[in-house]
Amino acid sequence: MQIILPSGKTINADPRLTLLENLKNGGVNIIAPCGGDGVCGRCRVIVKEGKYRTRLKEILSEKEILEGYTTACHTYPESDLKIEIPASSLLNVDGVIATGRAEDLENIFNSLDVRISPLTTKAYLELPVPTLTDNISDMERLKRGLAEMGFRNPNFSFRLIRELARNLRQEDWHVTVTLMDTEYGKEVIRISPGKADKIMDDYGLAVDIGTTTVIVYLIYLATGRLVDIASTYNHQIIYGEDVISRIVYATEQGGLRDLKEAVVDDINSLIESLKEKYRLSDRAIESIVIAGNTTMMQLFLGFDPASIRKEPYVTTTNRFPIAGAGRIGIKVMPDVPVYTLPCVAGYVGGDIVSGVLATKIHEKQELCAFIDVGTNGELVIGNAEWMVAAACSAGPCFEGGGLKNGMRATEGAIDSVKINPATLEPEITVIGEGVPSGICGSGIIDTISEMFLKGIISPKGKFSTDLGLNHIHLTDAGPEFILYQTGDDTISITESDIDNILRAKAAIYAGFMILLKEVGLTFDDISTFYIAGGFGRYLNIEKAITIGMFPDQPREKFKYLGNTSVTGAYLCLLSENLRKQAEDIADKLTVIELSVSGHFMDEYIAGLFLPHTNLSAFPTVAGARGIILESTV
Amino acid sequence: MQIILPSGKTINADPRLTLLENLKNGGVNIIAPCGGDGVCGRCRVIVKEGKYRTRLKEILSEKEILEGYTTACHTYPESDLKIEIPASSLLNVDGVIATGRAEDLENIFNSLDVRISPLTTKAYLELPVPTLTDNISDMERLKRGLAEMGFRNPNFSFRLIRELARNLRQEDWHVTVTLMDTEYGKEVIRISPGKADKIMDDYGLAVDIGTTTVIVYLIYLATGRLVDIASTYNHQIIYGEDVISRIVYATEQGGLRDLKEAVVDDINSLIESLKEKYRLSDRAIESIVIAGNTTMMQLFLGFDPASIRKEPYVTTTNRFPIAGAGRIGIKVMPDVPVYTLPCVAGYVGGDIVSGVLATKIHEKQELCAFIDVGTNGELVIGNAEWMVAAACSAGPCFEGGGLKNGMRATEGAIDSVKINPATLEPEITVIGEGVPSGICGSGIIDTISEMFLKGIISPKGKFSTDLGLNHIHLTDAGPEFILYQTGDDTISITESDIDNILRAKAAIYAGFMILLKEVGLTFDDISTFYIAGGFGRYLNIEKAITIGMFPDQPREKFKYLGNTSVTGAYLCLLSENLRKQAEDIADKLTVIELSVSGHFMDEYIAGLFLPHTNLSAFPTVAGARGIILESTV
Repeated sequence: MQIILPSGKTINADPRLTLLENLKNGGVNIIAPCGGDGVCGRCRVIVKEGKYRTRLKEILSEKEILEGYTTACHTYPESDLKIEIPASSLLNVDGVIATGRAEDLENIFNSLDVRISPLTTKAYLELPVPTLTDNISDMERLKRGLAEMGFRNPNFSFRLIRELARNLRQEDWHVTVTLMDTEYGKEVIRISPGKADKIMDDYGLAVDIGTTTVIVYLIYLATGRLVDIASTYNHQIIYGEDVISRIVYATEQGGLRDLKEAVVDDINSLIESLKEKYRLSDRAIESIVIAGNTTMMQLFLGFDPASIRKEPYVTTTNRFPIAGAGRIGIKVMPDVPVYTLPCVAGYVGGDIVSGVLATKIHEKQELCAFIDVGTNGELVIGNAEWMVAAACSAGPCFEGGGLKNGMRATEGAIDSVKINPATLEPEITVIGEGVPSGICGSGIIDTISEMFLKGIISPKGKFSTDLGLNHIHLTDAGPEFILYQTGDDTISITESDIDNILRAKAAIYAGFMILLKEVGLTFDDISTFYIAGGFGRYLNIEKAITIGMFPDQPREKFKYLGNTSVTGAYLCLLSENLRKQAEDIADKLTVIELSVSGHFMDEYIAGLFLPHTNLSAFPTVAGARGIILESTV
Repeated sequence: MQIILPSGKTINADPRLTLLENLKNGGVNIIAPCGGDGVCGRCRVIVKEGKYRTRLKEILSEKEILEGYTTACHTYPESDLKIEIPASSLLNVDGVIATGRAEDLENIFNSLDVRISPLTTKAYLELPVPTLTDNISDMERLKRGLAEMGFRNPNFSFRLIRELARNLRQEDWHVTVTLMDTEYGKEVIRISPGKADKIMDDYGLAVDIGTTTVIVYLIYLATGRLVDIASTYNHQIIYGEDVISRIVYATEQGGLRDLKEAVVDDINSLIESLKEKYRLSDRAIESIVIAGNTTMMQLFLGFDPASIRKEPYVTTTNRFPIAGAGRIGIKVMPDVPVYTLPCVAGYVGGDIVSGVLATKIHEKQELCAFIDVGTNGELVIGNAEWMVAAACSAGPCFEGGGLKNGMRATEGAIDSVKINPATLEPEITVIGEGVPSGICGSGIIDTISEMFLKGIISPKGKFSTDLGLNHIHLTDAGPEFILYQTGDDTISITESDIDNILRAKAAIYAGFMILLKEVGLTFDDISTFYIAGGFGRYLNIEKAITIGMFPDQPREKFKYLGNTSVTGAYLCLLSENLRKQAEDIADKLTVIELSVSGHFMDEYIAGLFLPHTNLSAFPTVAGARGIILESTV
């Protein structure tokens, strides 16, 4: 039994497996954000020819069923099938935009005043040949040689001892020893006969495993120079869009293995592309540092994340042992150490520790705030004395998820919107400047902000239908604002979309408020607001304040930093001192569980307005909106 | 192509492999002491039917060739072969006599005044269930629980962290944690859900890997009680009889693996037999301690021993990391720790460290000597202040090797001999009291001693042929003394046999002398001579002094101890304190390379007489021999 793709390519099909599974086995990655539960309907495909049975139809419209649409996750082939796959169902790995600010990296490192000290150190030894008056064991000879170079009594694995006799004698007692720092002292990880040709010609990788995007920085270790960036979608997305659906998938038979392999394969393919591009040998890459949220870290290492999902949100561990690349499945030399940034709790991960390290909040006297907006929003407030952190579920809407025409900030996304105050006509910009195919987070924030300021929607996010404009359509599901239209196809914002955004921004603002209350402070006490996240690159901070996502504070207090998770990984790749700082930051961060606070729901509900029920907290927004505010609040 | 055995059993034969290899692959263990080099001729078999080609005939007599004898190591089958295997060519695994003195073990341990502290400790924890106000990670929770029981910050392997979430929750946060001491602190080796049923119902194994014999003691860890002993031949013997021929074999393709597997298989079969006999569960055995000479230790762990053989006799390492049983191939739970006693040098191994520990020389004020006679002889002189050690090659003759009718001290061996002073008729005793099939080391020492005292041989070990007795036969190879005769078969001692013994005892005595000279002492300064070795059990000390093997000192100074190597392993199995003492002993022992000393050859040559050229050192022997001495020296 076969599945015939539009390209003419065929895939062998097993009738006991779903179409989704069959396509995956054949190398076709269909998006299934709900993990194949039949909830999201994103995995729809069109069957042009052939017989199948399906258990799930209610999620499709009658028109779609007539056109041959079916949800791949609940469809089983009963004959050869000829299918088409809508672009919206395919995982698009092109057009991913690296969100790090590469140009700033070296400046950050240089400003930190620490010396370069990667995970591994190499020592070249010319050992004296044994004689009858100096016939200590090979191991003692090696340890003596290492001690003379300042490496006292390092640890050796069983495997290294087995190979020791041969390795020492192969190049006449000249060897290059690679050592690594561990919490138990120095450990020898490799003994290579002879002198390494270019002892400092080593590269390292700083990796950020985002829920959505995996980024690899290739770093020249001798200088800390960023050589190049490679990035791809995190292919775990085919098993679920957010961390929760992935944790659920991990509990299924083989699920944890699937998720681990997906992200390890992503990293391997990025490494392979960098190695090819720079013609690096298999021995060129010497160390790897990984950052990401707690669930991403546990999945990457193969630790069961199930308990992170359920109250009281417990992790397996927040400190990860340095593991050999071979054990994890990363395709570099198997003994290359992989350091994973420490996490703090189930929803405050190594990405946040990275962010604090990159912003240096932990060294500042003045109070700072840090917010990393991704699928979850994580918040930190503090300084060198103390730091508190919290996480709130922003949902995927800022990355385009859950919205009628939402998409990620890639080519074709509407990423900024203005509304003409006279005509109320929308003016849009599109990433790549072509025909728009959807709207990304910054575009939505702009739209809602503009609609609010121009009176198209009320502070409750409801359309002022009395406006009777061309751009507001009334559909069965309610009114929507049209941003772009060709023929029957529209890109629009619905009241449901607005509700989604209100909930997300309310959660972030409420989190901020609760954290401040816990420490008896107000927004005025914060000197700098650091904004990070893949999202942050496209964020119009003015508009974000207008909708009440961030506090109405002087705009110069806000700083965009792009992806601070990979920056922190980069810093830890280069410096033992900074790895220690990262461990200290993880120790120091006190996590406030927002759901425990009795005030969180009050704050959250107060935030479900534009910009907020407490208008006195948003004076510049109130001023911009003018008198309309008084009548509606 | 097949080989048909006398039993009618057939073995598939590969014509590209030797008969020796084919038989080995078919599970028939033929002795090949020279490692298949065609030097010793011990692997001879009789081909009754079939064609073969052989490259080696000169080692066989014409009569043997006519009878169908061929050396299996150089014979290739060319058709089906029907063969017979002489008993002398088969590795006999029956009748092995355990040489430890089991009854003394517990007394020794009790006399040491240390508490029982095996390699592993078990802690049963009832951890509090996580709540929102106590939601530290699983790892922190476990570490907190362990810290409350006094185990601070132990190390965890990657594998244990992966399984942690499941193991903690399976029995509702009740777990039994098994910890082990390492040089880097405590390490957790196992986390078992629930409470171990009988937390103290654990057994340990003390193992001595001798060049010839492998002994396993099954020990009940809670009390230190010796439950039983199992022993077998070290099947490495099919690749070579002594350490040198095994080291040579280890350098061949796959040789190291063959040798490692042979001894690991031996230990596994002994463990299996003990488990069956006592109906032990797979979880019953909790820890293993191994002792043996340096080469045996390196082969057991799979470390290349090649450099031990060649000057300057260097080992890979003298300290061995504790390894999981699974890594070595021992068939108990894979995480069971295997502790290997430290060695000192290529020819002063863990067996000698064991011996010092068992004799407590390292704690004594008075000077003691320790000699372990096996295929090699190792010597220690010292006390609590200092200790020197040396090794000398005794050769296999004390175990029956290299002698015309030599055999090990098993059933059928002549183990004591008296010669009637009037008739010069030999009176023999035989182990098992049946028909004798050869003579073991103690029998040879007795015979030479008796022949010397009765004037049958001169101090140079030559027959006084003028005696013209029935018991002295003159053959083509020279005269020999007949101990037993039926029909054409004789058991006799040749001049070549006597030469062998003279060389061996001269080496041991010379080693003693050189060691004493190095420290400026004489035999009179030694208060106790501890004699150990499988050999020692059957040794008549009086006769050994008569031939000049041991010094002519008051007999009450000598103490037999049997196998002290396994005793030391037993002590280390039971006590962390004694494991530390073993490490200290290994540090403290100063090895004297006898071959470096300019005096060794002089001393050795002086010892090639009965009892010695310097008769004043053997006054009681001189007295027993009487006037004959004066005329011959």
